[in-house]
Amino acid sequence: MANKTAPDSTRRSEKSRRAIYDAALALVGEVGYQKTTIEGIAARAGVGKQTIYRWWSSKADVLLEAFLDLSAQAAEAAAGPEVLGEEARYEIPDTGDLEADLKAVLRATVDELLDPKFEIPSRALAAEGVVNRQLGTEFVAKLLEPQLQLYVKRLRAAQEQGAVCPDIDPRIALELFVSPLAQRWLQHTGPISYDYTDALVEYALYGLAPR
Amino acid sequence: MANKTAPDSTRRSEKSRRAIYDAALALVGEVGYQKTTIEGIAARAGVGKQTIYRWWSSKADVLLEAFLDLSAQAAEAAAGPEVLGEEARYEIPDTGDLEADLKAVLRATVDELLDPKFEIPSRALAAEGVVNRQLGTEFVAKLLEPQLQLYVKRLRAAQEQGAVCPDIDPRIALELFVSPLAQRWLQHTGPISYDYTDALVEYALYGLAPR
Repeated sequence: MANKTAPDSTRRSEKSRRAIYDAALALVGEVGYQKTTIEGIAARAGVGKQTIYRWWSSKADVLLEAFLDLSAQAAEAAAGPEVLGEEARYEIPDTGDLEADLKAVLRATVDELLDPKFEIPSRALAAEGVVNRQLGTEFVAKLLEPQLQLYVKRLRAAQEQGAVCPDIDPRIALELFVSPLAQRWLQHTGPISYDYTDALVEYALYGLAPR
Repeated sequence: MANKTAPDSTRRSEKSRRAIYDAALALVGEVGYQKTTIEGIAARAGVGKQTIYRWWSSKADVLLEAFLDLSAQAAEAAAGPEVLGEEARYEIPDTGDLEADLKAVLRATVDELLDPKFEIPSRALAAEGVVNRQLGTEFVAKLLEPQLQLYVKRLRAAQEQGAVCPDIDPRIALELFVSPLAQRWLQHTGPISYDYTDALVEYALYGLAPR
């Protein structure tokens, strides 16, 4: 992922790289993963095929990095200076108020899911991942799981603070509020809104059974 | 959906109908929704195209009924005599123990999701639904939502019994245990097992925060 070209060509390379990401995301959104090709991406980006092959070995690789870049942009827009490097491993805030912190990050996710720039290519990729286990697994490992691990970290801190039961598995627990939002978005099973994600956080933290 | 042919041809019609369902499910699993055609289904089922058009107006309609039939078979296998008619609107059991009832029905869902007969065509359809909003919405309304409403009914009964807080929206609450399972299955985000769904039910009912 590091830019291997000489300093004087860095700016031009960066511009090509951006054009290739934009072309790849636009194309996969329009024609789907199967019909997206390196040739098509190159033509749309206005670069030669060899420019793409110099940096990536397959369309899956191009798309993976294009999505990582898109997520980084979204994270940067949402988190501002907290962004840690180009991989956008921003932290979920820890104000000491788990409920407020989870509500805030899920509200930001709602905004991202409803942004067409994100939504259209993401749907195309998610659809392919449903039927193409290899691609789905790779994209989950590289794109989705690192984001979910931010919740794991925040929930572990909450366990240390006594806000979450110590015997709960954080990797499962996060799914109680993340997966409902993901399913509504993916499968059109219901509207998504701040009120909805706020309710998910409250239900998950305090449970459905009376206390 | 009612069989409009005369009684003496009912058996033959039923056989054709079953062959068409099987062909439609096999084909969509093999080539995906886009490449599945009425002609292809007819050829594979060994019937004329007109036989299909006599009963259904589009491939989406054929597939919808094929899935309803598949769900009905699965429900019949799981629930036995409780099956109410051909629409398989079986009830979630109400033994008075919500935790046990939810765990039982989710364990049965795990079995269904891991059954290749169900899994392969379901993935093909789910993938199409992600990018094809119209189809996704129709299939959710006719296939998924009626199943989710069974949880709504069981949670409402639990609210009357005092096992679930009265101010909780059951339609959102059910997603705390249904959606994580759906997302793991759809997106290959993690393994699915009885232990996993048992944990989801416990976390959802009692909450992540200490009581």
